[in-house]
Amino acid sequence: MNDLHIAILGHRFMGRAHSNGWSQTTRFFDPPYRPVLQVACGRDTKDLQKFADRWGWAEIETDWHRVIERDDIDVIDVSLPTHLHAEPSIAAAKAGKHVFCEKPFCRTADEAKAMLAAAEKAGVVHYVNHNYRRCPAVHLAKKMIDNGEIGEIRHWRGAYQQSWLNNPDHPLDWKLKKATAGAGPLWDLGSHAIDLAHFLVGDFAKLICHGKQFVSERKMVEELSQTGEVEVECAANLMGEFKNGAVATIETTRYATGRRNRHTFEIYGTKGAITWDMEEMNRLKFFSEGDPEDKRGFRDIMVNEPSHDYANAWWPPGHIIGYEHTFVHAAADFMQAIKDGTGIKPDFNDGLKIITVLEAALRSMETGEYVEF
Amino acid sequence: MNDLHIAILGHRFMGRAHSNGWSQTTRFFDPPYRPVLQVACGRDTKDLQKFADRWGWAEIETDWHRVIERDDIDVIDVSLPTHLHAEPSIAAAKAGKHVFCEKPFCRTADEAKAMLAAAEKAGVVHYVNHNYRRCPAVHLAKKMIDNGEIGEIRHWRGAYQQSWLNNPDHPLDWKLKKATAGAGPLWDLGSHAIDLAHFLVGDFAKLICHGKQFVSERKMVEELSQTGEVEVECAANLMGEFKNGAVATIETTRYATGRRNRHTFEIYGTKGAITWDMEEMNRLKFFSEGDPEDKRGFRDIMVNEPSHDYANAWWPPGHIIGYEHTFVHAAADFMQAIKDGTGIKPDFNDGLKIITVLEAALRSMETGEYVEF
Amino acid sequence: MNDLHIAILGHRFMGRAHSNGWSQTTRFFDPPYRPVLQVACGRDTKDLQKFADRWGWAEIETDWHRVIERDDIDVIDVSLPTHLHAEPSIAAAKAGKHVFCEKPFCRTADEAKAMLAAAEKAGVVHYVNHNYRRCPAVHLAKKMIDNGEIGEIRHWRGAYQQSWLNNPDHPLDWKLKKATAGAGPLWDLGSHAIDLAHFLVGDFAKLICHGKQFVSERKMVEELSQTGEVEVECAANLMGEFKNGAVATIETTRYATGRRNRHTFEIYGTKGAITWDMEEMNRLKFFSEGDPEDKRGFRDIMVNEPSHDYANAWWPPGHIIGYEHTFVHAAADFMQAIKDGTGIKPDFNDGLKIITVLEAALRSMETGEYVEF
Amino acid sequence: MNDLHIAILGHRFMGRAHSNGWSQTTRFFDPPYRPVLQVACGRDTKDLQKFADRWGWAEIETDWHRVIERDDIDVIDVSLPTHLHAEPSIAAAKAGKHVFCEKPFCRTADEAKAMLAAAEKAGVVHYVNHNYRRCPAVHLAKKMIDNGEIGEIRHWRGAYQQSWLNNPDHPLDWKLKKATAGAGPLWDLGSHAIDLAHFLVGDFAKLICHGKQFVSERKMVEELSQTGEVEVECAANLMGEFKNGAVATIETTRYATGRRNRHTFEIYGTKGAITWDMEEMNRLKFFSEGDPEDKRGFRDIMVNEPSHDYANAWWPPGHIIGYEHTFVHAAADFMQAIKDGTGIKPDFNDGLKIITVLEAALRSMETGEYVEF
Repeated sequence: MNDLHIAILGHRFMGRAHSNGWSQTTRFFDPPYRPVLQVACGRDTKDLQKFADRWGWAEIETDWHRVIERDDIDVIDVSLPTHLHAEPSIAAAKAGKHVFCEKPFCRTADEAKAMLAAAEKAGVVHYVNHNYRRCPAVHLAKKMIDNGEIGEIRHWRGAYQQSWLNNPDHPLDWKLKKATAGAGPLWDLGSHAIDLAHFLVGDFAKLICHGKQFVSERKMVEELSQTGEVEVECAANLMGEFKNGAVATIETTRYATGRRNRHTFEIYGTKGAITWDMEEMNRLKFFSEGDPEDKRGFRDIMVNEPSHDYANAWWPPGHIIGYEHTFVHAAADFMQAIKDGTGIKPDFNDGLKIITVLEAALRSMETGEYVEF
Repeated sequence: MNDLHIAILGHRFMGRAHSNGWSQTTRFFDPPYRPVLQVACGRDTKDLQKFADRWGWAEIETDWHRVIERDDIDVIDVSLPTHLHAEPSIAAAKAGKHVFCEKPFCRTADEAKAMLAAAEKAGVVHYVNHNYRRCPAVHLAKKMIDNGEIGEIRHWRGAYQQSWLNNPDHPLDWKLKKATAGAGPLWDLGSHAIDLAHFLVGDFAKLICHGKQFVSERKMVEELSQTGEVEVECAANLMGEFKNGAVATIETTRYATGRRNRHTFEIYGTKGAITWDMEEMNRLKFFSEGDPEDKRGFRDIMVNEPSHDYANAWWPPGHIIGYEHTFVHAAADFMQAIKDGTGIKPDFNDGLKIITVLEAALRSMETGEYVEF
Repeated sequence: MNDLHIAILGHRFMGRAHSNGWSQTTRFFDPPYRPVLQVACGRDTKDLQKFADRWGWAEIETDWHRVIERDDIDVIDVSLPTHLHAEPSIAAAKAGKHVFCEKPFCRTADEAKAMLAAAEKAGVVHYVNHNYRRCPAVHLAKKMIDNGEIGEIRHWRGAYQQSWLNNPDHPLDWKLKKATAGAGPLWDLGSHAIDLAHFLVGDFAKLICHGKQFVSERKMVEELSQTGEVEVECAANLMGEFKNGAVATIETTRYATGRRNRHTFEIYGTKGAITWDMEEMNRLKFFSEGDPEDKRGFRDIMVNEPSHDYANAWWPPGHIIGYEHTFVHAAADFMQAIKDGTGIKPDFNDGLKIITVLEAALRSMETGEYVEF
Repeated sequence: MNDLHIAILGHRFMGRAHSNGWSQTTRFFDPPYRPVLQVACGRDTKDLQKFADRWGWAEIETDWHRVIERDDIDVIDVSLPTHLHAEPSIAAAKAGKHVFCEKPFCRTADEAKAMLAAAEKAGVVHYVNHNYRRCPAVHLAKKMIDNGEIGEIRHWRGAYQQSWLNNPDHPLDWKLKKATAGAGPLWDLGSHAIDLAHFLVGDFAKLICHGKQFVSERKMVEELSQTGEVEVECAANLMGEFKNGAVATIETTRYATGRRNRHTFEIYGTKGAITWDMEEMNRLKFFSEGDPEDKRGFRDIMVNEPSHDYANAWWPPGHIIGYEHTFVHAAADFMQAIKDGTGIKPDFNDGLKIITVLEAALRSMETGEYVEF
C-alpha cells in the first residue's frame, strides 16, 4: 500500500473532523493508499502545534503557499472558512494536487467557476465535502430512488435547522459576515440541503428565496463591549420546482429553538415515500404503496445491516454510528477515486451548480422574484 | 334546559361529523341548550332519509329555502360542498338563524364579504368550522403562546398533506372542479392551515404561492369511460411572512404518499418551540429554553389531563380521543355563544380573512409574485 | 329493525362508556337491533337521574333485582365495581337476559364458574368487556398472527402501566380493597393484559407473579383525616410461558410515573414482530423478515384504512378514533351475536380462564412459586 | 505526556472496538498518558498481523504468557472469549499489569473471586468493560438519579434484545457453548443489563430467572453438514426486587425479531421517570412530575450539549456519536485512574457481583425458585 501525503489547511472544527476522517479510513475501510498526515497549516502556531500533536500531523506550516509548493504533498485538504477556499484550491490544482474541499464550496459562482476550471485543467481529483451524501441512510435512499422504489418524485420537503444563534450573546463571528461566509444559513446549511436535493431528485427549474433578519446587531468578537452589524440573513426559506416537475420547499435557519442539527427531508413519489433526519442518521423511513393496503406504514429502517453500504464496515447490526463517520466514508472514497483515476461526487461541478443555485437564491431574496435555471 | 332547533344542509361526510357533533354535546358537555336535530336537508331523498333515521333528524326536506323559512329553526348548519355555502348562509342570516358553516368558508372573498355582511346585519351567531382550533392540543398551544412560553415567534413550518389523489382511478369529483371547490388543496387543506396560522401566530404580511398540476385529466364521475380536466391545483406551497416578523412555509397537497391526514405545524420562538400533528392529535411537543441545558428536549405532552380544556370532558388521563371530538367541542361552544350573546371564533370575519389570503395566494400562483396584506 | 331493550347497572366511568357504546352503534354501524336505553340502575338517585337524562335512559331504578325481573328487558349491562358482577350476572342469566359484563370479570374463579354455569344453562349471550380486543389495531394483529405473518411466536413482552396512585393523596377507594376489587393492578389491568395474551398467543402453561406494596396506608374515603390499609398489591409483575412454548413477561402497575394508560405488548415470532401501545391505539408496528434485508424496519401502520375492520366504519384514512370507540365495537358485535344466535368473544368462558390465571398468579405472589395450568 | 504500553489479547470484534478505543482517546480527550499499542496477541498469525497492521500494534505474539512476562507492558487488555478471561487476567495482575477486561467478566463466581483477589493483591487498576455506563445518556441518567430528580425508584423494566439467532443457519459458535460462553444471553446480554441495574438502582434482594430453549441443535462450525447441541439458553427472563424495594423485570434474548441491539430500560420513580434505548443512544427520555400538570411529558433529551459529559468532547450539539465512542470513554477513564491511583468503575468487585447474580439466576433457571442476595 503506497502512502498518500495529505496537507490540511485549517485546524478548527472541520480540521478535527477531516483529520479523524483520514485517520480512520485504514482502520475500517481498505483504501488503496495509506494516508500520511504530513502537514497541518494554520496561522495560530500554538493552537496549530497542539492540533498537529493530537492528530499526528508530522509538520506544521503557517503559509499555505509553501505547503502547496511542496513536491511531496499529494492532497490538499481545504478545511478553512469559506472565503479561503478558492485561492488555495486553485493553487493546489495548478500544482497538481488533488483537492478535498470543505463546503460551502466558495462565496460566488465566479469563484466556483475558477476553481472548477483549475481542477479540470490540472486533471486532479476534486471533491466538495457534502458529507451527508455518504451517510448510509442517504446512500440507501439514493439506491432506492434509482431503483424506482418510490416512483416519480412529486414532493421534496426539506429543512436544515439549527438554533445556536438563538443565544443573544453569540458574537459576530466569521459566519455572520458576508465577506467571509458568502451568506448566512442559505450558504452554510442550504448548500448541504441543495446538494441532497440535487443528489436525490435532480436539477432545479426555478426557485424563490425568502430571507429574514431576526437579529441585526451582535457583539463583536474583537471587542465584546461593542456591537456590529450582522451582514448575512438569519433564516432563508426556499420554494420552487425541479426540472422533473417535483415541487420543493427548503428551510434553513439558525433560530429553530430546540433543533440542534436537524437536517431533514421528506420525499413523496408516485409509489412510495422516504424521509430522513440527520439527528437520527442511522434510520431511514420508507413507505411503499407496494405493501398490502392494510399493512402499509412508514418503515423505520435501521441502516446498519451487512447489506448497507458504508455502515457494514463498522459494527454489527444495531450498533449505531455517528456524525464523523461520514467524513471517513468521504476520505476513503476520495482515495479510491485517485487510485481509479475516476472522479468522486460531489465534485467541483456539483459545487459550482450548488453555488449557482445559492447565488440565484440570494438574488431572489433581494428581488422577491423567482429565478429560473 | 331549552331546546335549540337545528337544521342541517348536507348529509355526506360532514353531515355525519356535524350530526355526531351536535348529538354528543349533551353527553359530554353541559351546553345551555338541548340541540334538537329537527330537519335534514338534501336532494337524494333515499340517502337523506337513511341519514335522518341514523342520526335522529326528525324530518327531511329537499329544498333548503323551505328550511330557512321555518320559524321553528334556530340554527342552520351548512354542511354542503363549498359552492353551496354562501347563498344558504346569507339567507339563513337574513332569516335570523344562527349559522354554523363548514369550511372552506366559500369560493371567493366577494362571497365571504356578503356572508359576513348578512350575518353582522342580522346579529346572529356565525361560525366557520375550522375544527382543529378545538383540538385540545392546539388549544393548549394557543394558551402557551399567549402566556409567552415560547417567546416571540420566528418560524412557522406548516403542512397539510393527504394522499388520496395518488390513486389514478380517483374520479373527477366536485373537489377537483373550480366552480364547486373554489380551488384544490389550497382551499380544502390550506384554509385549515391558514386558520391555525392566524390563530396561533397572527396575520400575514406577505405570501407567495406555488401551485402544481401533477395530474391533469381524470375519469369523469358521470361517465367513467371518459376523462375531464382537473381544474384545480394538485399541490400548493406557500411561503411568506407574518406581520409580527415571523417567517412561514406551508405545504398543501393530496399527493403526499403515506400521509393520510397529516396536518402539522412547527413553531419556533425565542424561548421555546411547539410542534403538533393531527395524526397524533392527543399530543403536543414542547421544547423550553427554560429547562436546564442538560435536560432540555421536546416534551411529548399527552393532552388528556384534568387541566386540559375539552379533553377533560371525556375520559381519564391517557384514554385518547379522536377526530370527531373536535366537532363536539365546536357545537358545544357554538351553543354557549348563542346563550351568552357573544361571538365564537373563528367567525365569518375570520372566514373572510382566510379567503382573502387564499384568493391572494391563488393570484400569486398565477403571477409568480408576492402578495402583500 | 327491532328494538333491543337494555338495562344498565352502574352509572360512573363505565356507565358512561357503555352508554356511549350502545348509543353510537346505530350511527356508525348497522346492528340488527336498535338499542333502547330503557333503565339505568344505581343507588344514588340524584346522580343516577342526571346520568339517565344525559344519556337518554328512559327510567331509573335503585334495586337491580327489580330490573332483572322485568319482562321487557333483553340485556343486562353490568357496569358496576367488580364485587357486584357475579350476583346480578347470574340472576340476569337465570331470568333469560343476555349479559354484557364489564371487566374484571369477578373476584374469584368460584364466582366465575357460577357466572359461566348460569349463562350457559340459560343459553343467553354472555360477554366480558375486554374492549381492547376490538381496538382496530389489535384486531389487525390477530388477523396477521392467524395468517402466519409473524410465524411461530417466541416472546410476549407486555405491560399495563398507569400512574394515578403516585399521588399520595389518592384515597382508599374501592379499587384498593380486596373485597370490592378482587386484587390490585393484577386484576384491574392484568385481566386486560392476560386477555390480549390469550387472544393473540394462547393459553399459559405456567406463570409466576411478583407483587409489591409501595404504599400501605391511604386516607379513607369516608374520613380523610384517617388512614386505612391498602389491601391490594401496588404492582404485580408476571413471568412465564405459554403452552405453545413462547415466553412472557407482563408488568402491571399504578405507579409508573408518566404512564397514564399505557397498555402495550411486543410480540416476536420466527417471521416477524408486532408491537402496540393503547396510548397510540390507532397504530400497529410490524416488522417482517419477509422484507428485503436492506429495507426491513418496523412499519408504523395507521389502522384507519378501508381495509381495516371497525376503523372503516368511522372516518376517512388518517382521521383517528379514540378510547371509547372500542365500546361501540363491542356493543355492535354483541347485538349481532344475539341476532345470529352465536356467541361473542371474550365470553364467560374466557372470563373464567382469565380469573383462573389471575387467581393462580395471586397465589404465586404469596408462595413465590410457579403455578402451572 | 508519558507513554502507556498496552498489550491486547484478542483481535476479533472486541479487538477492533478496543483498539479504536485506545487510539481515539488522545484525539478527543486529554488522557494523562499516550497509549502505545505495543503488542497484539492471538493464535491466527495471518489474521493477527493484518489486525496489527490495521490498528498500529507494533508487534504480534501468539502466546499470551510471553506478553505478560514482558517488563515494558503496562496494561493487559483482555478482548478474548469469556472462558479466556480469568487466567490471563490473574497472571497479568500478578505480573503487576493493569487489567482492562472485556465482559462478560468470566464464567463463574469462583473465577471472578480469583480474578478480584489477584487484582487487589497486586494493587493494579482493574476494570470490566461494561461500556454502556459511559454512554453519555446513561451517565446523565446516573447524575439525575443521584440528584434525586426521579425520587425513590419503584420500577426497573429492562431488556436486552437481539435477533441474530433467528437465522436458522447461524452455526454453533463459541457463544452457544457453555464451556466457552458461561451461558447464553443471560451472560452476554444479561451481564450488561445487570450492570446498568446495579449502577442506576443498586443491589438486588432477590431474583427468579426463566430460561428457554427455542432451538436446540445447530450446524457445527467445524463441520456444517453436522449439527451439535446448543448448550446455552436461547432466552432468559428475569424478575425480582432490589434491596431498596424497587421491582424489576429484565428480558434477554437473541430471538427478538427486528431488534438488532436493543438495550433498553425504563425507570419509574416517585418524582419522575427515565427511559433509554441503546439503539437511540444519543437520547434520554425524562418525565418529571415537577413540570406543571398541563405541560408534563417525556422529554426527548439529545445528550450532545456542552453540559453533557463525554458527549462534549466530540462534536457540536446535535452531531451524534455512535456505539464505539463508549469504548473511547472507557479507555480514557482507565488511563486517568492509573494516573490518579484511584479505581475505575465497574471494577472486578462489580464484575464479581454481576457474575454472582448471573450464577444465581442460572441456578434459579434450573430450580424454578427465587434466589436471594
